[in-house]
Amino acid sequence: MSSIMGNKLKVSVFGQSHGEAVGVVVDGLPAGMKIDLEQLQAFLNRRAPGRTVLSTPRREEDKPRILSGLYEGYTCGAPLAAVIENGDIRSEDYVAMAALPRPSHADYSARMRYGDHYDPRGGGHFSGRLTAPLCIAGGIALQFLEKRGVFLGAHLQAVGTVWDRGYDSVNLTRQELHLPATRSLPVLEEEAGKAMEQEISKAAAQRDSVGGIVECGVIGLSAGIGDPMFDGIESRLASALFGIPAVRGVEFGTGFGAAGMRGSEHNDPYVLRDGKVRTATNHHGGVLGGITTGMPLIFRVAYKPTPSIGREQQTVNLDTMTQAPLCIQGRHDPCVALRAVPCVEAVAALVILDFLL
Amino acid sequence: MSSIMGNKLKVSVFGQSHGEAVGVVVDGLPAGMKIDLEQLQAFLNRRAPGRTVLSTPRREEDKPRILSGLYEGYTCGAPLAAVIENGDIRSEDYVAMAALPRPSHADYSARMRYGDHYDPRGGGHFSGRLTAPLCIAGGIALQFLEKRGVFLGAHLQAVGTVWDRGYDSVNLTRQELHLPATRSLPVLEEEAGKAMEQEISKAAAQRDSVGGIVECGVIGLSAGIGDPMFDGIESRLASALFGIPAVRGVEFGTGFGAAGMRGSEHNDPYVLRDGKVRTATNHHGGVLGGITTGMPLIFRVAYKPTPSIGREQQTVNLDTMTQAPLCIQGRHDPCVALRAVPCVEAVAALVILDFLL
Amino acid sequence: MSSIMGNKLKVSVFGQSHGEAVGVVVDGLPAGMKIDLEQLQAFLNRRAPGRTVLSTPRREEDKPRILSGLYEGYTCGAPLAAVIENGDIRSEDYVAMAALPRPSHADYSARMRYGDHYDPRGGGHFSGRLTAPLCIAGGIALQFLEKRGVFLGAHLQAVGTVWDRGYDSVNLTRQELHLPATRSLPVLEEEAGKAMEQEISKAAAQRDSVGGIVECGVIGLSAGIGDPMFDGIESRLASALFGIPAVRGVEFGTGFGAAGMRGSEHNDPYVLRDGKVRTATNHHGGVLGGITTGMPLIFRVAYKPTPSIGREQQTVNLDTMTQAPLCIQGRHDPCVALRAVPCVEAVAALVILDFLL
Amino acid sequence: MSSIMGNKLKVSVFGQSHGEAVGVVVDGLPAGMKIDLEQLQAFLNRRAPGRTVLSTPRREEDKPRILSGLYEGYTCGAPLAAVIENGDIRSEDYVAMAALPRPSHADYSARMRYGDHYDPRGGGHFSGRLTAPLCIAGGIALQFLEKRGVFLGAHLQAVGTVWDRGYDSVNLTRQELHLPATRSLPVLEEEAGKAMEQEISKAAAQRDSVGGIVECGVIGLSAGIGDPMFDGIESRLASALFGIPAVRGVEFGTGFGAAGMRGSEHNDPYVLRDGKVRTATNHHGGVLGGITTGMPLIFRVAYKPTPSIGREQQTVNLDTMTQAPLCIQGRHDPCVALRAVPCVEAVAALVILDFLL
Repeated sequence: MSSIMGNKLKVSVFGQSHGEAVGVVVDGLPAGMKIDLEQLQAFLNRRAPGRTVLSTPRREEDKPRILSGLYEGYTCGAPLAAVIENGDIRSEDYVAMAALPRPSHADYSARMRYGDHYDPRGGGHFSGRLTAPLCIAGGIALQFLEKRGVFLGAHLQAVGTVWDRGYDSVNLTRQELHLPATRSLPVLEEEAGKAMEQEISKAAAQRDSVGGIVECGVIGLSAGIGDPMFDGIESRLASALFGIPAVRGVEFGTGFGAAGMRGSEHNDPYVLRDGKVRTATNHHGGVLGGITTGMPLIFRVAYKPTPSIGREQQTVNLDTMTQAPLCIQGRHDPCVALRAVPCVEAVAALVILDFLL
Repeated sequence: MSSIMGNKLKVSVFGQSHGEAVGVVVDGLPAGMKIDLEQLQAFLNRRAPGRTVLSTPRREEDKPRILSGLYEGYTCGAPLAAVIENGDIRSEDYVAMAALPRPSHADYSARMRYGDHYDPRGGGHFSGRLTAPLCIAGGIALQFLEKRGVFLGAHLQAVGTVWDRGYDSVNLTRQELHLPATRSLPVLEEEAGKAMEQEISKAAAQRDSVGGIVECGVIGLSAGIGDPMFDGIESRLASALFGIPAVRGVEFGTGFGAAGMRGSEHNDPYVLRDGKVRTATNHHGGVLGGITTGMPLIFRVAYKPTPSIGREQQTVNLDTMTQAPLCIQGRHDPCVALRAVPCVEAVAALVILDFLL
Repeated sequence: MSSIMGNKLKVSVFGQSHGEAVGVVVDGLPAGMKIDLEQLQAFLNRRAPGRTVLSTPRREEDKPRILSGLYEGYTCGAPLAAVIENGDIRSEDYVAMAALPRPSHADYSARMRYGDHYDPRGGGHFSGRLTAPLCIAGGIALQFLEKRGVFLGAHLQAVGTVWDRGYDSVNLTRQELHLPATRSLPVLEEEAGKAMEQEISKAAAQRDSVGGIVECGVIGLSAGIGDPMFDGIESRLASALFGIPAVRGVEFGTGFGAAGMRGSEHNDPYVLRDGKVRTATNHHGGVLGGITTGMPLIFRVAYKPTPSIGREQQTVNLDTMTQAPLCIQGRHDPCVALRAVPCVEAVAALVILDFLL
Repeated sequence: MSSIMGNKLKVSVFGQSHGEAVGVVVDGLPAGMKIDLEQLQAFLNRRAPGRTVLSTPRREEDKPRILSGLYEGYTCGAPLAAVIENGDIRSEDYVAMAALPRPSHADYSARMRYGDHYDPRGGGHFSGRLTAPLCIAGGIALQFLEKRGVFLGAHLQAVGTVWDRGYDSVNLTRQELHLPATRSLPVLEEEAGKAMEQEISKAAAQRDSVGGIVECGVIGLSAGIGDPMFDGIESRLASALFGIPAVRGVEFGTGFGAAGMRGSEHNDPYVLRDGKVRTATNHHGGVLGGITTGMPLIFRVAYKPTPSIGREQQTVNLDTMTQAPLCIQGRHDPCVALRAVPCVEAVAALVILDFLL
């Protein structure tokens, strides 16, 4: 499998950071849906780099060319394939240091897996660049979800030690979901955004990087979606989310916080609201036994700090098998979590749509 | 899929808490391995209830009957099927309150998914009882792993606000891995165990329950195991672990902690140790880009507090659609994380073995 | 995968011919369907041996015990597991000749695959005995299909050189579909059945066996079911049908006959019948491009002659690596295709139901 | 799934006949293999049309552009993606008759499946054009197989009522396997090729088409490859082969012929040849119980006559729901089986390589 995910909706991602192109094939999209290509481009632009001082100056156009799957602007039932040509590539930065695995990148593990013919340029297939085609697929999935009355959004909940407030897990609205996408930093509280900008700038100034947490919410899902055990909402979402580079943890509802709680605190009482069964609180994050309860689906994704930093690091020269210092040049985001917000939305949208098909 | 997991090693779990039997089919075990049934039983006994005051007094024998897959004591290449008959069942406890979904159980979501013919007795297929057959499969997988020099263990790292120390993520030994299984509570530090016992007893005395965290470690994995993106070690482990009832979060290495760190702290420098490439620290938990690095694989699983508590709770009567109080009688563990330790080992063993086949 | 098939409906078959039991787990059956256990038993009896002089005298009760998946007689959404205990076993027949692979059985290939610990008794997991649990699953699937207005039947179309007429591929009725199940031999034309009986008896008298062809028809499928390319009706049916022991060929509609035809003969013109689009002929067997056309689905399955025959055969002693004569004792059907008719129905029902879910 | 096949080696095919491009993603190719692009092009040329009077004059260059998966000419472990731009398209031929489903094409079933937004131009995703990317993937797989000492070839065994001899199923050599690729028509006996040419020309002159049979052989497979039941060699090959447009039947070894035989004829005695276990005959086609025996793997694929013929046919106008005559203009092969020979090789190579990984 490796770079393929999904059951009824299969998503196959391909490309290397410095190869000819990156792309995606989405197999299983229902026919008859008009794809709004401008809306898709606007979504992709949220991920694209080069827009603020906080992200890598590498300018990727991220203009997808759709090769198949549409007919007269509508999905036609055939697999949808799209590619983005790679441009503005400076591979010499990477090839020079092919023998020097960068700490906390996949260089070493990939070389152990694939041997000498592994493509080292820019992380090859392990690059964050691969989230671009993922966002094409996810951006299209988001349009399908909206047609079905399902709305999904994400925000940067933490950068280092600076926190944004969380989504209102009981009364989450479409407005609150999409608020972060309208800000310069994708947060709920503008103050938090400013503090995060400072945190990121400070790390960058120190030739360092910083981690973060992305929170995602989904509303409009009826109760009863999902399957028990290994095919539950949590299993499939987690499996897909851990496929995004730099993700280190996934939690639903109160998540790790639940471990420190008493049952009497954590249990969500059932209540009637306008004749509907709801829960008074939502520690369960909208899913019990792998199946939705009809409450907002809430989960969080932990991102590690960007492993590429400007400071000298220690590594091992794999050719000579000697200790060696490493100075990473290149261009890098000081906080991968920042541009990861639409990636989390994309992956979540694909998984949720897969459940709904 | 739902109750089936795995690629080359497929595990299909079946049964309801108060049905005839629970069981498992494991498809893909290599032929020619002698299964030590006593060792398997000892493993199952670690999960079985009724052994301490801290767990439900329901006495399940958990004696599996192996129906297929062995020939003269050795795996023969055919699927291995095993069942445990259900006994000591008091279904009347549950049927009486079929219309009253228990907070934070799957009762409501399952009823929305399956309708009126859902089996409500003891949580049906959503019961923690289903981890018994999972442990049969996992206990067998552990024996295969040991033959390949791969050792795996888990311990209760937190109960409520009481913490055990973590595994030594750099120099983890087989001895440290298996130490918890020799204690009355599966912990590394005996003091922590005593404090946890008190925490659990206190919650039980207050007719309440408490959550916890299980940490798991794996040693003996060479570098280069796994696949990029959606078929990586983290994706497959997380997918399987979230299939265990009551799991709310999964993190690898430093996990959510990484979000608060700087890259210069979190990055693990490569060093030479006895001529081998290792990392000086192991914040990455033994896996980068979905692929093992050869360092100990470390991950943590968050368990919510047992949803069944003795206190009165609020729910909705689904027949009359009116608010209703609920008093759960039955018998329940005050801390599901306690008995979950071998379940985490079982699931991890199945996933890891699947990667190695 | 090996002994697991299906997408939304997963069927996992286990057991060895002379092991403790054979059984099946069916994951994905919709909840809320009352299973008619008498009808299921009647279906299983059509496969069971020991009923006529034409089949092996081994008496297998084939009384399934359902371990899970039902609640108060209805499917409850949990995986349905069923086992049949093995009885009347004479393993000594087989163990004595473990080193002598029987021609055209899987003994040799299985030993090369699984090594010395392969279970040689009665063909182990490769035995036709494994079609019993397959028929449990399929018999249940048939009940689901009938509720949806889909009817499926099969008949013995050829035994050696004796042929029954084929189903009426254009105007196939439920009556014609189920006619064969009411006869002593499952055929459409009684005369053909008598001639087949003679053919089988003659082969048996000569301590020989004979092959056959089973034709299957399905009505009630609307147009537009299936998917293009590798997930079409033909791909999934063929994949499952070749999983039945002794199957050597699968063809749809006119099948291999189409190769000898002109397009002007083979093409099926579209016509209006009662305001509906139909085809005047049905050489395409109800499926085009992997997707149903609404015409009866028609396919044929070729069975080889029973490989176990009473005559002396040549083989190689794998222990001594010398040429050796082989006399198979045991008890065998002279024509496996005869009892295979319900097996083809079972497998087809599982695949078709999987498409409809 | 639909247009994705494979287990460890996943192949995802995309494109519509008259869309922007057709292409393929191959996920799971081992790293470190140098791909001979000239050899690949030579393989693709065997499928490409416009080369003889016997095939459609549509000139497709079939020059693949490889977007990812290679690094310095070697596979690098990342998914290999390749596209062929579509050119020389005359869609007006098709759009004019979108309401008139062509007999024995997928037009009608696809429209029932996908509705009005189905792409009708040239059969859309159901076109034989999609075998071009399949041949890219298969041509690469063939190179991997050769490196492992596995050789595979196919020939046109029948066109209408004209037959070529079959492969020598016992002593099949690499030379015999590859002989057909050197002839103007891919046959073993030159005489048969000439007679087939006449058969095809005659059909074409009569504005008709003709069916055919492709036989495929594989040598170099050791005994013991494959899995029982639903994951056997036959199941996986048949599943993939039925994914090729126009395939109506698949048989292994003696196939349907076995149904007319006695066991004493059909059974293949084991014999020692040069100290190795072989069979004296090979009616089983190299596979027993889903697992290879080490004998040549032999199977046959039945192709229907090209459904597009120049004669007037009857169909139904789906817009007006009235009977309507249909005259197909366009350009078509009079015998699809002819160009299908490398397609069968491609699909078989992908399946076999998947088993070997």
